[in-house]
Amino acid sequence: MSLLDNLKWRYATKKYDKTKKVSEEDVARIVEAARLAPTSSGMQQFRVLVISNQELKEQIVPIASGQQIVADCSHLLVFAAWDKYTEERIDNIYQVTTTERGLNEGHFNDYTNRLKSVYLQQSPEENFAHTARQAYIGLGLAIAAAAELKLDSTPMEGFNNAALDDLLGLQAQGLKSVLLLPVGYRDAANDWLVNMKKVRNAEAHFATYIK
Amino acid sequence: MSLLDNLKWRYATKKYDKTKKVSEEDVARIVEAARLAPTSSGMQQFRVLVISNQELKEQIVPIASGQQIVADCSHLLVFAAWDKYTEERIDNIYQVTTTERGLNEGHFNDYTNRLKSVYLQQSPEENFAHTARQAYIGLGLAIAAAAELKLDSTPMEGFNNAALDDLLGLQAQGLKSVLLLPVGYRDAANDWLVNMKKVRNAEAHFATYIK
Repeated sequence: MSLLDNLKWRYATKKYDKTKKVSEEDVARIVEAARLAPTSSGMQQFRVLVISNQELKEQIVPIASGQQIVADCSHLLVFAAWDKYTEERIDNIYQVTTTERGLNEGHFNDYTNRLKSVYLQQSPEENFAHTARQAYIGLGLAIAAAAELKLDSTPMEGFNNAALDDLLGLQAQGLKSVLLLPVGYRDAANDWLVNMKKVRNAEAHFATYIK
Repeated sequence: MSLLDNLKWRYATKKYDKTKKVSEEDVARIVEAARLAPTSSGMQQFRVLVISNQELKEQIVPIASGQQIVADCSHLLVFAAWDKYTEERIDNIYQVTTTERGLNEGHFNDYTNRLKSVYLQQSPEENFAHTARQAYIGLGLAIAAAAELKLDSTPMEGFNNAALDDLLGLQAQGLKSVLLLPVGYRDAANDWLVNMKKVRNAEAHFATYIK
């Protein structure tokens, strides 16, 4: 099964080869995997920024606890989610679906009204707790896509989200950063993790079967 | 690229063929994809319960807003995450890693101390907000694995988490339910969604390139 082989092959790369760049075509495939991710009620609550600008990647190093991989990678993907739900956002996505599927106008009105009654009464913080989760589905598919292309990637959470939002002007777009994903080619000679065994909980500990 | 083809093929199945069961081998492959998911600091904060017991699946229908797919599917996967971080949990996973990699005892002490200083001072609710996110990575990989096997699946959030935790005795295991994933074979003749066009935000709207 090729997905499992790819997942066994990948690892959280700790050192990138600065001189090797990922083709635009391959980057687009990784982005496409994230775009195809299922999301809660199909609302696609997250976006991806793809940064190959070297100067900007360098500026993100101090925001990412000094981790040099965000600068040394070929492309830095930033997963950012809606800062909150709005009536307009919910309507927009269902308008696209109505049009694309050739349905009658108002086809989803009952459904979007239910979504609004749930999400618009929550705080922006509660909204973001939900939208941010969706980005993780996209991240999972993006790393699988990278691995299929034999490209390296490193999922990262530990960064100064507010500072990154400022730097990228995300607030003006109604977005907040959630995850970083450097993508590129490993510098195997200088990566301490590359030859370490991948460790996971034993299958018997991870999964419980109720038959 | 096979992952992209598989992601285009899949859809959130709304009607399962009750008579068709997924082989144990294929279920194990889907679980394995989730088990191989990367997680924050490699802590594998989530588990998967695989329910094929028909009576138990039926009991979950009312907990899942009456959605019959949780009973009609072949196997119902429940993704559940740590209810909170504990010193023991953090130590355990790094003890496994230390042993599996043949490292010196205490190799990760500085790192685990840093993790403890972050997570053990948070509330259980803050902890769970973080552990639950990791389950979404596993979900993404599980649906990709199912699609590769030409098996159908339906990611689900909207259920009564507390009631499901009670039914499955998750609290005693230090877990809280996060996601459901029915897996099985579509009943194409009776599924309203099967022939609908898959709709996603346009690539230009989804991704921003900063070169």
